[in-house]
Formats: sequence, C-alpha cells, structure tokens
Amino acid sequence: MKTILLTVAYDGSDFSGWQIQPGARTVQGVLEEALSKACCRHVAVEGTSRTDAGVHALGQCVTIRGEFGIPLEKMKMVVNRLLPGDVMIRKLQVVPTNFHARFNAIGKTYRYRIRNCAEKDVFLRNFFYTVEKPLDIDAMKEGAARLVGTHDFKAFMAMGSTPQQSTVRTIYNCQAVAEEDPFGVSIYVKGNGFLYNMVRIIAGTLISVGHGKLKPEEIDWILERGERKYAGPTAPPQGLYLMKVFFESEALMDLKQWE
Amino acid sequence: MKTILLTVAYDGSDFSGWQIQPGARTVQGVLEEALSKACCRHVAVEGTSRTDAGVHALGQCVTIRGEFGIPLEKMKMVVNRLLPGDVMIRKLQVVPTNFHARFNAIGKTYRYRIRNCAEKDVFLRNFFYTVEKPLDIDAMKEGAARLVGTHDFKAFMAMGSTPQQSTVRTIYNCQAVAEEDPFGVSIYVKGNGFLYNMVRIIAGTLISVGHGKLKPEEIDWILERGERKYAGPTAPPQGLYLMKVFFESEALMDLKQWE
Repeated sequence: MKTILLTVAYDGSDFSGWQIQPGARTVQGVLEEALSKACCRHVAVEGTSRTDAGVHALGQCVTIRGEFGIPLEKMKMVVNRLLPGDVMIRKLQVVPTNFHARFNAIGKTYRYRIRNCAEKDVFLRNFFYTVEKPLDIDAMKEGAARLVGTHDFKAFMAMGSTPQQSTVRTIYNCQAVAEEDPFGVSIYVKGNGFLYNMVRIIAGTLISVGHGKLKPEEIDWILERGERKYAGPTAPPQGLYLMKVFFESEALMDLKQWE
Repeated sequence: MKTILLTVAYDGSDFSGWQIQPGARTVQGVLEEALSKACCRHVAVEGTSRTDAGVHALGQCVTIRGEFGIPLEKMKMVVNRLLPGDVMIRKLQVVPTNFHARFNAIGKTYRYRIRNCAEKDVFLRNFFYTVEKPLDIDAMKEGAARLVGTHDFKAFMAMGSTPQQSTVRTIYNCQAVAEEDPFGVSIYVKGNGFLYNMVRIIAGTLISVGHGKLKPEEIDWILERGERKYAGPTAPPQGLYLMKVFFESEALMDLKQWE
C-alpha cells in the first residue's frame, strides 16, 4: 500500500471545474479515468483545491493510494499519454501512507492575470481577464499590501457559501506586479487557506482600486466591516491560476517563492 | 450599395473551420450571425480562404455588400461586441463595389508554428504543433528555400482534393525561423495561391527534413515526381495561421512583409 502525491497542471477552459459531477467533464473525472485505465482498477483521486470551471492550475496537488500495478518510474509517462491535451502530471512523489493532498496542505499560492488593453484578443480570452480602462498599478500594490496578515476575510467570501467554522485566514504575501507582454497586472496571493471565491474577490477589489473606485486604505475598512457588499466584484475565473501548494512550513515562509 | 472589406482574426480551436455547414459552429456562420444582427438583415460574407477546423487566422479577409443600416465608423465596435470571444474584426475598409475577398486576392502568407519540446504544455496545445525530437533548423531553412519559385505542387496537395485546373503555384518566399519562447520553429510561406493542405504538407515535409528523414535536396526530387506519397505527412491544423491576404502586387513583392 503506497500513497503518491501528483503535481498536476491543467487548462481549465474546457472543464466544468475540478470536482466530479455526473454528466460533466471535470479534471478529477478525467484524471481518475486515465489513472484507472493505467492501473487496471478504479483509482480515486483527492485534490487539494476544488477549482471552479475555467480556473487553471500549474500546481494542483493530488494524492492516490493503494497498489498501482505499474512501475512508478513509468507511471507519469503512461498516464500523461492517456490524459487529454489539457491535463498533465508534472511530478510524481512517493509520500508517507497517511499523507493527504488536502488535509496536509498548509498553504497555497494563486496568481490572477489581468490584461489591461482596450482591444480584444481572440487567442488570450481563456487565459486572462481583460480590463479596458487603464489601471493604476501603484494603487493596486498599496491595496494588495493591506490584505497581508491574519484577518477575518468574511467580506471576501462569495455570498451563499457553505458556512465556515471560521472566516479568519492568514495571507503571507499579496502583490500586484506589472506585466509587459501582454500589458497588464498579475496579482499573487499566498495564504494558509482561502474562502470560496476569495482570490477572485481580492482581484475584483484590487481592480476597483486600480480604477480609482476604491482607495487602497478602504481595504482596511472593508475587512473590518466584514460584509461582502463592500468589497469589489468577483473577477471572472479565466484569470485565475493555482500555482503551488505548500506542505512544509519552511518553503511557505520563503515569501519570494511563488511557484 | 457599398462593398466593405473586413480583416478578421480568430482562434480556430472551437470551430469546425471557416465554411458554413449545417449543425456546425463555423467562423463564417458566427460572422454572418453577428453582422446580420447588427444590420437587421441577412448579411452574407465572402472569405478569401476556407480554413479547416483548428486553423487560426490573424488576417482572414472578408467582403460584405449592400446597405448596412449602421454608421460605418461604428460597425467594427458594434459587431465586435456581438461576436463571441474567439472571433474579431481587426479592420474595416470601404472598397470598390465589385471587389471580392477571394477573386481579388493575389497572394497570402501563412505561418506554421512548431514547438520543439519533449514535455507536453496544457496551455499551448491548440496553438502549436509540438514535436518532441530535436529539429535541425539549418536543414529546414535549406529545405524551405528549395520550395521558392514557380513549381507544380501536386506532391503537396492532399489526396482526394477537388481536381484543379492547374497545380502550378508560385511561392514568393518560404523560410524556417528559429523561435525562443516557446523553443521551436516558425515556417512562413508566401505564395500566389495554395492547394488543399499545401502549407500543412510543406510543414510536415520540412519537419521530416529537420528530423533527417529527408535531405533538403530531396525536396527538388519530390516536386519533380509530383506524387503525394513522396512528401512528408500533413502537419496538424493547430499550428497553422493565415497571417495576411495581399490584394496589391506591390505589397506582395516586399518579401520582408509577412503580416
């Protein structure tokens, strides 16, 4: 009996999200199908993060357990050949038997990519959120810094989410970074956990700051008030990338390591 | 009665090609729908090139005729808002009444993009043809140069194509260019006309040259023999881009102008 940790990348454009749903094409479903075919038995996969439809991943983490009936050194290659073009295994590691991709994760990094351009681009539509009006990146940087720390992020949780024991989360680092090609901004957020839609609401709120609709310092007030209606809109899924899952506190503490 | 020339870009990934077919999502169909909605009447579109499923365009050309019931200076913006994210009008020009996107075209440039890497990339699968084995780009450059000129390109026409009056075409320029990001090769081909699948067979043949399966000088022999079986395989559609359509011989003669 072995436990294996897979690092998985996917283009979320053609998926109805991570989690298996009857009649829908999901990343979890496609992965279980390829792994089960490779191992000649049903292989259940546990993912760290249940990403929504249209959301991408470079570093989703997944655990699988049991005996696999296939040499581990060949598994990545064999399964990658069975997977469709929009999902791939990047890394395969043997981990302690009781390791779990979700319960052992102590942090995650997300990136939200914004293209700041008035013109449509037919090739980038699934990979960026395009914002036409110019963004004030300095204001966004200042707003991002105000999210860092341990706060009650209730204002940054989607309405109607499953009630949480606690809406307090710690953001270790949050930065808005100017991008050249295509011209725009990336928002990086590293934290110990995220509420439903939290990164997309952070992105939407920082865009409101970039457009001058909110002042950077109003972020403090939004956090204090704790009501969803005061934060900005939920930015669309196609700009969001799950970059990395952290399992050891040391790596998590290196604030420069985004991926 | 006016004739308008539209320059159109599209991501061909989710289309069953250019040409209207019942029950299929086609670029021509989607364009006619948006234009007809904008003009409150049926607007038929004539395209220069009937691109296949999965083939992209940066400079497809399209003519439309008649009265449009909408100010021409607003037409591009209005129609772009009605079009889905994977098609857009880049340019709109009023042309002489009898102008026709296909019959007045005197040349076209295509680009074929090859990613030369052993690892899969989930985000690039629809935009490049990924070739795992290293390519000898110098050999490809030499092979490309041998295609330039006026030749009978029968060996570079798909089997079972509609019979042509003549399979003689002139290639003004054909180059293999090394690319860095992602690492690979672009093949540019500028010619006065192309047989069915001609650019994809040229790409497949130059890849065979890059892999040492064919020598560059064997291209001359393949042209002479004129049989499809001697040329390389047809490279897949997702690497192909229709870059530019030429209507005036002067622009066509500038060999440096690819786009």
